[in-house]
Amino acid sequence: MAVYTEVSDEALGAFLEDYDIGRMVAFRGIAEGVENSNFSLRTTGGDFILTLYEKRVNPAELPWFLGLMEHLARQGIVCPQPVRARDGEALRQLSGRYAAVTTFLPGVWPRRVRPEHCGPVGSALAALHLAGAGYEAIRPNALGPAGWAPLLNRSVGGADQVQPGLACELPAALGRILANWPKDLPVGHIHADLFPDNVFFLDGKLSGLIDFYFAATDILAYDIAVCLNAWCFEQDLSFNVTKARAMLAAYEAIRPLSAAERAALPVLCQGAAIRFALTRLYDWINTPADAMVTRKDPLEYVRRLRFHMSAKDAHAYGI
Amino acid sequence: MAVYTEVSDEALGAFLEDYDIGRMVAFRGIAEGVENSNFSLRTTGGDFILTLYEKRVNPAELPWFLGLMEHLARQGIVCPQPVRARDGEALRQLSGRYAAVTTFLPGVWPRRVRPEHCGPVGSALAALHLAGAGYEAIRPNALGPAGWAPLLNRSVGGADQVQPGLACELPAALGRILANWPKDLPVGHIHADLFPDNVFFLDGKLSGLIDFYFAATDILAYDIAVCLNAWCFEQDLSFNVTKARAMLAAYEAIRPLSAAERAALPVLCQGAAIRFALTRLYDWINTPADAMVTRKDPLEYVRRLRFHMSAKDAHAYGI
Repeated sequence: MAVYTEVSDEALGAFLEDYDIGRMVAFRGIAEGVENSNFSLRTTGGDFILTLYEKRVNPAELPWFLGLMEHLARQGIVCPQPVRARDGEALRQLSGRYAAVTTFLPGVWPRRVRPEHCGPVGSALAALHLAGAGYEAIRPNALGPAGWAPLLNRSVGGADQVQPGLACELPAALGRILANWPKDLPVGHIHADLFPDNVFFLDGKLSGLIDFYFAATDILAYDIAVCLNAWCFEQDLSFNVTKARAMLAAYEAIRPLSAAERAALPVLCQGAAIRFALTRLYDWINTPADAMVTRKDPLEYVRRLRFHMSAKDAHAYGI
Repeated sequence: MAVYTEVSDEALGAFLEDYDIGRMVAFRGIAEGVENSNFSLRTTGGDFILTLYEKRVNPAELPWFLGLMEHLARQGIVCPQPVRARDGEALRQLSGRYAAVTTFLPGVWPRRVRPEHCGPVGSALAALHLAGAGYEAIRPNALGPAGWAPLLNRSVGGADQVQPGLACELPAALGRILANWPKDLPVGHIHADLFPDNVFFLDGKLSGLIDFYFAATDILAYDIAVCLNAWCFEQDLSFNVTKARAMLAAYEAIRPLSAAERAALPVLCQGAAIRFALTRLYDWINTPADAMVTRKDPLEYVRRLRFHMSAKDAHAYGI
């Protein structure tokens, strides 16, 4: 679940006094999300999300995330908007954590991905990439290629306990990925975590994007690779090329890919798969048994990685 | 957290078609609660809670719980109301579980109990006890005294690993409690789990009671004992007699206790403490390391039990 920090009612009451959003009506923890504590907050002024930023988030980077969300909204991207307190500040403190109130987005994330979700995700991703262009501050991607070897080093010792052979397979794959990693592809602000639980739909249409706290400045096509991993595999981990084709065609209708970007799709997908395999492996090994978070199986991404390692070119993804 | 069963958007859409509550607007898992899966559901018709009943709930008993909630509301108790589908049925199925939609109650549960919460809780509990009187069907309390010895037997083998000596202390305490258990005290429908997270407050007033899925027909004063355990101990597990006095005085202003009920308070409190110590101990020993639920520390209730075992009479509770 995603409530790591409890907020006392007095503390919340005092916190809300700094805002012009009315009095508290309801306040419940939200089960979705794994990085921060999220609450659904209703006041006499409307519905909001209260986020308490937990230890994995660097407080110094919070203004960058909040600023990006404001910038994107001005460019027409539907995403949560930071609500400023009376003093003009959106980033505040509550219960020993940095905290922000954001607007509530209607919509429901798809628990089961259907092909008709994938086109709208591709369009939204391309629109996000174009909209990000005017936001000047950059944020290096801590979970990009430069971060993968250190991450592997911290968990490779336990990898064979998760599956025999993994301690050999992952370093070999990572070596090959880093050796082939593309240079000179177009860079911009990417969401970097656009999984189904971060995309809302309403009445069959994509209604908004949430959770920008992995966003960073990196290769734009790498964001597509994350989405291909997150949206286009079936429960049995077979790759659904129909979904991939729908996603890529919709993306290209808004932002066409260069020949170099297309050619790099296999290695970008390998990189995205190993990124999630490695963070999940690290969490799998290091999450205490009594933690509140369900550990996610790293092997799901090892199996995706194997698919991408065998992809010869972009035709594997339906284009 | 409290989302054990995922609900696909198609399944939810089909489920809602049986109701007259409009189209889906938002749907999020709720972090609170440990027994069932709860979702906050917004439709074009308003706000609701969707509950999927998980394996600890006996489906045959669900109509009793839903009927009690309807009965209590007719008597003026503010609690969630089952929403009936077009065919008149409130209890339905979704994603392989029994499921019900109930009304959304505004309010916030107190994360930190203050003395001024305890009077309203006492009043609400007494009002609940009076209001239950006309609901004729009974539900034996599976977690009442008859259930404690079997529960202890299933976990006593692991008790000394939780704290050395517990495998001796708990059977001795349970023997004394059962030997002294009162007969002939007034019986009625009790909530049996009226912890702070089941009581909402709004603008300083108690605004509603939720989660009736432990409700049963049992000694009314035992319900007070549950509340004394749940509301009147500080974080360091010292007993706050000011809170107890406020709760009991407010209860008695609506439903005065008989001399026999007062005299039984220590053993009723002992029983309530051992009931929560035993279910927590069982869960502590039997919850798999990768479960989604945070195990609650049984020792918090062993320490409450020790306090109550040393209580000579009702004066220990401020009356």
